[in-house]
Amino acid sequence: MDKINLIIYGCGVMGRKAAQALLDKKSFKVVGAVDIDPELVGKDLGEILDKPEKLGVVIEKDAEALFSKVKAHAVVHTTTSHLKSVFSQVAQCLKAGLNVISTCEELSYPWKRNPELARELDSLAKEQGVTVVGTGINPGYLMDTLPLVLTGPCLKVKSIKVTRMMNSAKRRVPFQVKVGTGLTQEEFKQKIEDKVITGHVGLLESINMIADGLGWELDEAVELPPQPVIDELEIKTALGTIKPGDVIGLTSIAYGKKEGKEIITLEFCANAAVDEEYDEIIIQGEPNIHQKIVGGVHGDIGTVAVTINTIPRTIEAPAGLKVMKDLPPPKATL
Amino acid sequence: MDKINLIIYGCGVMGRKAAQALLDKKSFKVVGAVDIDPELVGKDLGEILDKPEKLGVVIEKDAEALFSKVKAHAVVHTTTSHLKSVFSQVAQCLKAGLNVISTCEELSYPWKRNPELARELDSLAKEQGVTVVGTGINPGYLMDTLPLVLTGPCLKVKSIKVTRMMNSAKRRVPFQVKVGTGLTQEEFKQKIEDKVITGHVGLLESINMIADGLGWELDEAVELPPQPVIDELEIKTALGTIKPGDVIGLTSIAYGKKEGKEIITLEFCANAAVDEEYDEIIIQGEPNIHQKIVGGVHGDIGTVAVTINTIPRTIEAPAGLKVMKDLPPPKATL
Repeated sequence: MDKINLIIYGCGVMGRKAAQALLDKKSFKVVGAVDIDPELVGKDLGEILDKPEKLGVVIEKDAEALFSKVKAHAVVHTTTSHLKSVFSQVAQCLKAGLNVISTCEELSYPWKRNPELARELDSLAKEQGVTVVGTGINPGYLMDTLPLVLTGPCLKVKSIKVTRMMNSAKRRVPFQVKVGTGLTQEEFKQKIEDKVITGHVGLLESINMIADGLGWELDEAVELPPQPVIDELEIKTALGTIKPGDVIGLTSIAYGKKEGKEIITLEFCANAAVDEEYDEIIIQGEPNIHQKIVGGVHGDIGTVAVTINTIPRTIEAPAGLKVMKDLPPPKATL
Repeated sequence: MDKINLIIYGCGVMGRKAAQALLDKKSFKVVGAVDIDPELVGKDLGEILDKPEKLGVVIEKDAEALFSKVKAHAVVHTTTSHLKSVFSQVAQCLKAGLNVISTCEELSYPWKRNPELARELDSLAKEQGVTVVGTGINPGYLMDTLPLVLTGPCLKVKSIKVTRMMNSAKRRVPFQVKVGTGLTQEEFKQKIEDKVITGHVGLLESINMIADGLGWELDEAVELPPQPVIDELEIKTALGTIKPGDVIGLTSIAYGKKEGKEIITLEFCANAAVDEEYDEIIIQGEPNIHQKIVGGVHGDIGTVAVTINTIPRTIEAPAGLKVMKDLPPPKATL
């Protein structure tokens, strides 16, 4: 089998983790890397990985110049969460005739939040005969693809509820900061108002993908402001010991509604006091399906794996902007 | 949306359940029915359903004659488990330019057990520009498609174990007979020798589909003879009260082996003493995934639903013989 040649676009935490994981796989070869950070440009990609070793792949600043000199099948794109800020990057890849697998959360289902940008990317991809997909563990898998797959044995579906319950103290420090760990309730409130804390990006994308997949016309998809989680006991975290009454994490909830009923409910719970981690999907229908991933799926590894495992599906897919529900699901690649 | 027009091929228990379920759906229309049973031929299909009502669809004996006069998109084929016995029926449908979704267990992954028949069906389907898929809850979903989907968030997979734990006393009587309920141990042994009790058909198909999906070359796939399950207490079933020491069900186990290790293990447990029903998937890898469907998925409803929900995927797929791992997964249809 010929290897799939890849360019890493964005050499931050996720880009590096993806690059590191790709090195261990037979199916892929990293042939190029892009980042705008002056600290990174000019370095060998291998030098900034967990297990540093020279790869002969220099991180370049100018993506277009790189695309013109290196031959690749696809780009693994990991920069930011919002489609508006990554649009030109993704468009640039497509124009160069490259397939794109991106971790941009809003790209996982862009047809509602950014329909015009979605249409533009779709046309561009079709013109070039390539495919673009936004994915990751969530959005992209646990709260949309997997619930849809679990409706496969159902004759009818009335409602779907997905809950991710995770202990944030076990995750990376930036993640702990992102969920408000250690803030006073007042500070948390302020950061919500200032949109410094936004909760989890992608709940609405997942809701819209589920609804589309099931042929449901929702009246509305709404996301509530993240709620702080408080505990009565002191809790030790990598950010220090959190006093009772201070914030130990947050809960983000979003609903897909139809005729006043919440027919899709997504609940993202991340705090330092969670004893039992899990990812749970409850489908009310015929039959009911109640599934649980005991211990949950680790977010970082999961995102890297889903992204990598989606690469072959993307390359094989018909040209255009695709969402995960349209592809054969990812499976572990060699 | 135009309705998908279907012919029901085989009007036994599963064919009727499929027909009944299809009547409740907006996406499909049943336009023909075939069976060779003289008791059924000439009857209106609707008369033999759970909720009898005339449908204007007469059960015909001669499939070819029916195909020449009725226009359909696909055939829902539910006759028997073995590919050799259904080959000519499926070939007949393909020759008539009809897509086929079949519950024939051996058709779910025919490339190992019957590679020549598989090749023939593949060529025939391609010649006619149609698609043929074998599916159902198991094989087709719980022990192959779903485990593969659950490797999506894995960077590496070392082994997969799937267990279906079901209480046979809650199922149809023919199923209870099939798992040996009420036999003495001696009678059970004899029926295994005589191949009257065969255990669950499809474990090897599921193993081969998983291995193929993950790019694993197995040294062998083996199925052990079904083992009787005995209890110390009396158990009441629809087949009467079972004495302690008599058979209350069976366990079928199959392995996919590589270098002496069992890297795929499928365990099908059906007996009248099961307290907690579940379907469980344990993936050893990076990360480990431990998934459980609490209460399990009911076999009959599940098979009907997976079959129906695979119809649109089959029609949309490229021509040829496909297996479930190659298609976007089934999701509940309207």
